Amino acid sequence: MNYYSEQISKLIEELSSLPGIGSKSAQRLAFHIIGMPQERVERLSNVIVEAKRKVRYCKCCQTLTDRDICPICASEKRDHKTIMVVENTRDLAAYEKTQKYNGVYHVLHGAISPMLGIGPADIRLKELMVRLQGDVSEVIIATNSSLEGETTAMYISKLIKPIGILCTRIANGVPVGGDLEYIDEVTLTRALDGRKEL
Amino acid sequence: MNYYSEQISKLIEELSSLPGIGSKSAQRLAFHIIGMPQERVERLSNVIVEAKRKVRYCKCCQTLTDRDICPICASEKRDHKTIMVVENTRDLAAYEKTQKYNGVYHVLHGAISPMLGIGPADIRLKELMVRLQGDVSEVIIATNSSLEGETTAMYISKLIKPIGILCTRIANGVPVGGDLEYIDEVTLTRALDGRKEL
Repeated sequence: MNYYSEQISKLIEELSSLPGIGSKSAQRLAFHIIGMPQERVERLSNVIVEAKRKVRYCKCCQTLTDRDICPICASEKRDHKTIMVVENTRDLAAYEKTQKYNGVYHVLHGAISPMLGIGPADIRLKELMVRLQGDVSEVIIATNSSLEGETTAMYISKLIKPIGILCTRIANGVPVGGDLEYIDEVTLTRALDGRKEL
Repeated sequence: MNYYSEQISKLIEELSSLPGIGSKSAQRLAFHIIGMPQERVERLSNVIVEAKRKVRYCKCCQTLTDRDICPICASEKRDHKTIMVVENTRDLAAYEKTQKYNGVYHVLHGAISPMLGIGPADIRLKELMVRLQGDVSEVIIATNSSLEGETTAMYISKLIKPIGILCTRIANGVPVGGDLEYIDEVTLTRALDGRKEL
């Protein structure tokens, strides 16, 4: 790094501290940024600070948004009796892209992971339980299909069942377009268990 | 992108316009940045603007630096009679890392590419020719071993030879640690042509 002048080194250092950006990418990015027109550099810099400053958690579903209540929670067209629980805002966006889900969401911002020392109190579960005191008919748990996601799903379902609200989990199976040959045994077994009549 | 609120979308858009950052990486980076502590976000933002503002071309070798004359050109310990011509500042840094080169550099900021419409006037060749009017004994051409790099090397050598300055090209060959089996025929042929007595 010290083969570059101080300002360039600083920029490379900051960029390489970001996730998924190694030292080579950081160098490439740094020189790209230095070569960009002045106003684009300022726009990039401003947008970073502005996003950090303006983005906050939706008071209802906890997603990251620039309003007090996110557009989904504020929409009258959505079914507020159905809540899909996801791990983060990107997962919410993934389901929004399908344009097939009309309910609302609850973003946990993480998953229970005893390995990483993340317990139920470290994710936004308390906020979900408060929402369930309202008029809710179904909670769809759409946490990832990882160990942490499954643990979180189990934990939430145990909390919700006693309240008498329907609690469902999104299906496991062969991804559409997936080649059976390359799919792991657990997924194949779950796809068989979850088979449907044609 | 419009599944996120405006500020988040803007940040994702800016990030995904950077080289090597696709839409998924941009989303991941954006949420990482939003989740960073306030002061780290400000540092990142400042360092971007500062690098752009302070970094300029060395008046001598044209490398990117934050001074008028870069530390290498300003150093009395370097051999100013030997100039290594490279395509960009990263290539200069690559040779500096070897700690085996004691001459100075000349950074072209590009290579001649008829395909991309980049001609000799578009790279910093004129500045090199001006430097050659001084006391220079050797010009080592270390442009990339690509079509553009080779074209540039040929072009420069034809300009320099009439002046009577020694003009050399870094060697082609098998990279150290390279497995012959996976190396292309052209490289193998050049390695054979460039063989040395042991």
